[in-house]
Amino acid sequence: MKSKILSHVLEIIDLTKNQQDEFLSILNEKTVTKKSFLVKPGDIVTEEFYVVEGCLVAYYLDELGNKHILQFAVEDWWISDFESFFNQVPAKLYIEAIEDCKLLGINKEVLEVLYQRIPQFERFFRIKTTKAFVSLRCRILSTLQKSAKERYLEFCKDYPDIEKRLANYQIANYLGLKPESLSRIRKELV
Amino acid sequence: MKSKILSHVLEIIDLTKNQQDEFLSILNEKTVTKKSFLVKPGDIVTEEFYVVEGCLVAYYLDELGNKHILQFAVEDWWISDFESFFNQVPAKLYIEAIEDCKLLGINKEVLEVLYQRIPQFERFFRIKTTKAFVSLRCRILSTLQKSAKERYLEFCKDYPDIEKRLANYQIANYLGLKPESLSRIRKELV
Repeated sequence: MKSKILSHVLEIIDLTKNQQDEFLSILNEKTVTKKSFLVKPGDIVTEEFYVVEGCLVAYYLDELGNKHILQFAVEDWWISDFESFFNQVPAKLYIEAIEDCKLLGINKEVLEVLYQRIPQFERFFRIKTTKAFVSLRCRILSTLQKSAKERYLEFCKDYPDIEKRLANYQIANYLGLKPESLSRIRKELV
Repeated sequence: MKSKILSHVLEIIDLTKNQQDEFLSILNEKTVTKKSFLVKPGDIVTEEFYVVEGCLVAYYLDELGNKHILQFAVEDWWISDFESFFNQVPAKLYIEAIEDCKLLGINKEVLEVLYQRIPQFERFFRIKTTKAFVSLRCRILSTLQKSAKERYLEFCKDYPDIEKRLANYQIANYLGLKPESLSRIRKELV
């Protein structure tokens, strides 16, 4: 279960064998069964999670009961309520498992110690966070700039093979489209 | 001009006197006069900028000629077309000076060398980028979750004293409100 995250980290930084072992030793294995929640609004989130296996969705539920999907996470992605995790404030999001999931969690305080002990992780998380930040800005611009079809194709590129794992309405919600509009686009592309 | 950025950096990381001098030596001083552009769509952006003095706005201009304001930057903020800067792709944004500005730029390649020479900057930019990422996620959630008045008050907190420096329509655009709605909110709050 831990070899995947090691390859994921070693793509970006170099670590000695001892450093690799130390890193692996601080990870918490976690399983979440389909339809159960990793995070709920009000939680103070103490971990961020790397997805070893499975698929999760992070969404905000508004006062009228409408879901607004912010993020999906599949294998090799990170997920958390990042505002809660970084600022230690109550979570606003639900994070729900769409499939049975195997995750590896890093605790916030343990991560701070890791930065002191193995400063290469500053680089690792700087690069991962920069990518997440740039992707989020791109996504905001996409909704202003691109057609629904272009945004769907971009989604398929960003989340390869995920389409089969999600319901049509989940992808539509993420893209800010009506489910019937997305169905029409998908038919046109077949 | 450079003492401000030094305090800004030393709030987060420790540097020896030599490291401080090395950092200051790589910064490029830049002035941009009111109403001129720091970045235009199509540019490959090679620098990110720290604002010493002045106020800038980053916006996307859609096909119909509508502006969509993504970010303001005032003293002590960083600004760039981050997608272009990090991925070296053509910029999509205009970045325009709303006032005469004094900026300090860091070149992307020079920054990569800085990370090798003074790894504390990995930490500095990890923390800055994490804050920017979390703010952007909060801003997306705010539009789903909060009333126009709450979002205006949040804006005043995030950008203290900026109201007097911006036109009503600029703040309204950033908040996704009609200018007349914002005027009404501001009157109510007086």
